[in-house]
Amino acid sequence: MEINVGLVGYGTVGKGMLEILINNGNVIRKRSGFDIVVRAVADMNIDKNKDALLSTIPHITRDVNQLLDDENIDIIVELIGGINDARDIIHKAIVRKKHIVTANKALLAMHGEEIFKLAEEYDVIVGFEGSVGGGIPIIRVLKEDLAVNNVKEIYGIVNGTANYILTKMEKEGKEFYDVLGEAQDMGYAESDPAFDVEGIDSAHKISIISSIAFCTHIPFHKIYTEGITNIKQIDIAFAKRLNCKIKLLAIAKKYKEDIEVRVHPTIIPDRYILSKVDDVYNAFYIRCGKVDRTIHYGRGAGGSPTGSAVVADIVSIARDIKSCSSKRVPLLGFSKKFDNYYHIKDINEIYSAFYLRFTVVDKPKVMSVISGILGDHNISIISALQRGELSSNNMMPLVFMTHEVLAKNIYDAVNIIDQLDIIKDKTVIIRVEQ
Amino acid sequence: MEINVGLVGYGTVGKGMLEILINNGNVIRKRSGFDIVVRAVADMNIDKNKDALLSTIPHITRDVNQLLDDENIDIIVELIGGINDARDIIHKAIVRKKHIVTANKALLAMHGEEIFKLAEEYDVIVGFEGSVGGGIPIIRVLKEDLAVNNVKEIYGIVNGTANYILTKMEKEGKEFYDVLGEAQDMGYAESDPAFDVEGIDSAHKISIISSIAFCTHIPFHKIYTEGITNIKQIDIAFAKRLNCKIKLLAIAKKYKEDIEVRVHPTIIPDRYILSKVDDVYNAFYIRCGKVDRTIHYGRGAGGSPTGSAVVADIVSIARDIKSCSSKRVPLLGFSKKFDNYYHIKDINEIYSAFYLRFTVVDKPKVMSVISGILGDHNISIISALQRGELSSNNMMPLVFMTHEVLAKNIYDAVNIIDQLDIIKDKTVIIRVEQ
Repeated sequence: MEINVGLVGYGTVGKGMLEILINNGNVIRKRSGFDIVVRAVADMNIDKNKDALLSTIPHITRDVNQLLDDENIDIIVELIGGINDARDIIHKAIVRKKHIVTANKALLAMHGEEIFKLAEEYDVIVGFEGSVGGGIPIIRVLKEDLAVNNVKEIYGIVNGTANYILTKMEKEGKEFYDVLGEAQDMGYAESDPAFDVEGIDSAHKISIISSIAFCTHIPFHKIYTEGITNIKQIDIAFAKRLNCKIKLLAIAKKYKEDIEVRVHPTIIPDRYILSKVDDVYNAFYIRCGKVDRTIHYGRGAGGSPTGSAVVADIVSIARDIKSCSSKRVPLLGFSKKFDNYYHIKDINEIYSAFYLRFTVVDKPKVMSVISGILGDHNISIISALQRGELSSNNMMPLVFMTHEVLAKNIYDAVNIIDQLDIIKDKTVIIRVEQ
Repeated sequence: MEINVGLVGYGTVGKGMLEILINNGNVIRKRSGFDIVVRAVADMNIDKNKDALLSTIPHITRDVNQLLDDENIDIIVELIGGINDARDIIHKAIVRKKHIVTANKALLAMHGEEIFKLAEEYDVIVGFEGSVGGGIPIIRVLKEDLAVNNVKEIYGIVNGTANYILTKMEKEGKEFYDVLGEAQDMGYAESDPAFDVEGIDSAHKISIISSIAFCTHIPFHKIYTEGITNIKQIDIAFAKRLNCKIKLLAIAKKYKEDIEVRVHPTIIPDRYILSKVDDVYNAFYIRCGKVDRTIHYGRGAGGSPTGSAVVADIVSIARDIKSCSSKRVPLLGFSKKFDNYYHIKDINEIYSAFYLRFTVVDKPKVMSVISGILGDHNISIISALQRGELSSNNMMPLVFMTHEVLAKNIYDAVNIIDQLDIIKDKTVIIRVEQ
């Protein structure tokens, strides 16, 4: 089965989406049973000759109306961003009964109610997983997986630029405007960074997900929004003294009759997992009545992560179009007829770094005997640790950390070493992830 | 619309599921449009009189065949656990064209292929979100959200009992068998803990999710499985010296033509988010080609979290039964007609703890003047910090950490304080989560 897509807007995410459809066509077919075909791309600044990806697209145009009028297009993917043109295109597509996929959080935060109402009227689906949390599947999690819960609160780190700046300020001791300048030079911050550093983008996103979580429309203009431009190094230093970090959080809470939604810099203890969410990563902490706490972490932006969310929405709509059978999702998420044969590795065939704790007699040459045998098995050693104070009965622990090595070599070497009379107990072997 | 459920097995999860359906009936109806009705419960040891929850159930029996033969039942929920009886019940339900929801990871790991094949033959859905990760929606995430990605690797902390024991060993310096005994006394470990501490339960779970992730059947008996019974305090201490922790990981990786799947204790650096997953919590780190890294964290077991996954599966099947329209999920995950009116709080109405940094002249009485005004506004102070070495021009920072307080009081107090001539710069206000 073929699903035909028209893409409007060919920027970072549009390109990421196209790359996924081309590179991952096999896995998408395997899981969904569909061929997703991009029939047309519309963009004001497009140049077919400058981009090899576009050579696969039959129809490239600067006129979006050609896509809207193409009766073979099932889904319009809106990735131009901004408000007015995007709103107009989505309206026109909906009344022509085309399904919509968009990553436009500003548009949905401002005009989502109107768009969803129109889509319901015309029996059209709007997928918007890419609008919040990039590669983190937070919207479907709230709509389906946590659907049977009363969501009590959400704490989100939802803007990668702001989080990157705060992380740099903390790790490098620099002031806000210095880090912002560097981030702009490296392309991590826009030349006009206001949406990111003033908290506006975060407020757009919490408006969307708190509406889903609390089952009611949360208007963007009711959200208190405070950015990070006033955060000083001295405050980060004080927070550190308190075993805390400063993060830009988007917070939404529901009480019996009240809701609060806000975006502002927040000091959180180091022991919180959210305090470990650094650089451009995003995360959502959600507390529900029944499921209790869940955390969802990943890349909040970028062509591939957001492109992946956009393509997942396309696949979901394709499943809906096909549906009318109980098999809208194959039981394991893929169709049996596409199964492949894979060799499943034995544990001996698997490479890993290792921690080896030998129990040895406290004699000279013990270290060289053991490391010699390890060397004979191509095991190279990163470090050796000894703890003299633990010796008793002339026995002591001797720990080696190895580089990555074939597991079989470790077992073979330890089998030989454990026969030696300098070894007083079975050697402990633990794998190490570096 | 009514969906009729027959529940087989009334233990912790069955009870958790019933509590959710009763307590959260409103939110479930709001999001799905359905009434989920439990028509019958079958359990060998059930006693209607000892459990108020059961008073709402029309039909209670010890004979599961009465449920299987009830033509009004759409979905059989299998929560008896174990292999043979559960397998038999699921087979019989499938051939009677009843949809299945189960949390039985051992059964699916051993006989999943056969069950899924039969279900496809009879056009029946099998929901099994509760079988892995309890309240963490990992199965749907892999089947739908990450469906357009090639999954490269999964690292999971998937057994709460083992993770609880390792956490206790690390925090309290005790040996394995001492902690195990305590955990058994507290009900965190079974009287026969082999499945949990020997890694078997973890292997069941990684068998299921690696099959989904890699789109191929991963047989349970091919998974290398090593538990935590040999982990000694001395190894945990050495790991600590290396800025690492020991966790029981379930690991699955896919290469071009090879797959490796294994369960064993693993040393991981403290800087990994997985190293912060403590106590009974579970987490999955997933690396994909396009989305890159995501982490999914939550409670891996228990009546409410696993019950929530079971009910989410029921709702998903109900949506499929209804389907045949593009509206299988409402656009925001809930139906507009159930919208409520909520007052959205102004930022001034919201309670929080605060960090206040005053820039003051270095005079006696400054502290008492400021704390006096804070006290006048019902702001109670946890601690005050001063950093003498930073003073210059007779100015210095003075930091107060407050208890939770109405935000308006903070703003009012700071407005007054900022008028004082002992204050030399605008006061910095940052919210604190404790």
